[in-house]
Amino acid sequence: MKQLNEAQITVVGLGLMGGSLAGALDGKCKSVVGVARREETINAAMKRGLIDRGTTHLADGVADADVVVLATPVRVILQQIRDIGPLLSEGCLLMDLGSTKADVVAEMAKLPGHVQPLGGHPMCGKETSGLEAADPAIYRGATFILTPLPRTSKSALTLGRDLARAVGSKPLVLDAQRQDFLVGTVSHLPYLMACALVATADATTSADPAAWKIVAGGFRDTTRVAGSDVAMMTDILLTNREEVLKALDVLQGQIVRLSHLVESGDEGRIRAALSEIRQKRLEMFP
Amino acid sequence: MKQLNEAQITVVGLGLMGGSLAGALDGKCKSVVGVARREETINAAMKRGLIDRGTTHLADGVADADVVVLATPVRVILQQIRDIGPLLSEGCLLMDLGSTKADVVAEMAKLPGHVQPLGGHPMCGKETSGLEAADPAIYRGATFILTPLPRTSKSALTLGRDLARAVGSKPLVLDAQRQDFLVGTVSHLPYLMACALVATADATTSADPAAWKIVAGGFRDTTRVAGSDVAMMTDILLTNREEVLKALDVLQGQIVRLSHLVESGDEGRIRAALSEIRQKRLEMFP
Repeated sequence: MKQLNEAQITVVGLGLMGGSLAGALDGKCKSVVGVARREETINAAMKRGLIDRGTTHLADGVADADVVVLATPVRVILQQIRDIGPLLSEGCLLMDLGSTKADVVAEMAKLPGHVQPLGGHPMCGKETSGLEAADPAIYRGATFILTPLPRTSKSALTLGRDLARAVGSKPLVLDAQRQDFLVGTVSHLPYLMACALVATADATTSADPAAWKIVAGGFRDTTRVAGSDVAMMTDILLTNREEVLKALDVLQGQIVRLSHLVESGDEGRIRAALSEIRQKRLEMFP
Repeated sequence: MKQLNEAQITVVGLGLMGGSLAGALDGKCKSVVGVARREETINAAMKRGLIDRGTTHLADGVADADVVVLATPVRVILQQIRDIGPLLSEGCLLMDLGSTKADVVAEMAKLPGHVQPLGGHPMCGKETSGLEAADPAIYRGATFILTPLPRTSKSALTLGRDLARAVGSKPLVLDAQRQDFLVGTVSHLPYLMACALVATADATTSADPAAWKIVAGGFRDTTRVAGSDVAMMTDILLTNREEVLKALDVLQGQIVRLSHLVESGDEGRIRAALSEIRQKRLEMFP
């Protein structure tokens, strides 16, 4: 397996995540090829210097690649894994950037033997999507989850780690099921909560124009992720359904608990519960 | 009633909100007097140039004041309103900075006739409390809700507006009940949601050290307000109980709806619901 600096890397999908990754790999490898559905996306990525070459033909884009990174919504990734095997050269490292990993890894397990598969999930992003929003800096300092398969070779995993480090991220190897459970709570659940809050305000206060004059940082920050890309989030909810439902269940229990607490009007208990939660958050983000 | 630039203003409570207000009033009025429980707080506020003079004696601090602003937690404000009437001079404008207004206004209605009462609630703050965190700039650009009483004179309301504008805020006159309903949803509800999310993560994922490596901006932003001052939030929940419970009820309904949607696995319906919510948030924050 080649070293990163000798590798030709093909990024499939030039949206926010793929476009940013391509740009962040500039100068870290032999060349970066971009694959997109539309010619205009290729042209825009070339113009911004994010890729060395681009094509709208998947087969053409991945034929000589040492590393292929699928940067499309999760269910598109699943379909691309099914199609791409025969197009890849011997020993090619196939990675993805999807937010859920159990389904991806299960599909990767069916790849022909000459391919080295490795699940990936960089914990970064923005609430704006598309190539226009691409920014190589988003990878800097982010944790880049890697979910190897039993068949993933040591050198393939090393190359994956090198790629993560090259874009400024910190690689973290996790079991795919475990990662889905964890991100179900720390990433997908906050998204649904933000959506629930927007829907609540929409159902009650939003008719009053004063509501939007008094909205302060709290509501804005708490609902920020409700602006996330819908296609991406739909795929995430469809492929991480069980973990998300379990997390929602725990959340509902916590809301009921807080609701009873407020209803009780018991100052001592309210203060104790809020203090404990405040303390826990301080521990989470020291 | 005096103009703002001729007024002696006394701020009672030199925490984040009061200390910041005192500093923001510097140069906008004749003088700023600070009242705090502890001598050290007075000394620190003097040292930072936030006040012209300070005292730990309420009666002494408010005796010559043209404007008094109560900047303590809501239930302390309620007690101070009960005590302060006889200490205030003829025509003195009494304001507060509490987050809930119905109880405050009800208590203000009982003030002796020589006092001009006006409820206030600046929509700004930080998740750090105390004088150390004080920053006059937090008022800049914020909406400053004013809830006048039937007995509040036109010139008292004008002086209140002038004070809000002097610290860089935008005054907004609202009925006290209406304000409590609105902030119940756009401010107090996000706080409880953030608390529920922290408690959920604490109950499930937090045992895994990997959870805190993969936490991205989403969870951090969504839970930021869970770090708010506990004494302040306890008072808010105790004095805005009914509106908060109503808002929690609508929120629970929305979470159940989203939960059923995820469970259905119905791509079309999920996509439509998420798109609608995303669109609504874009309208809320264009």
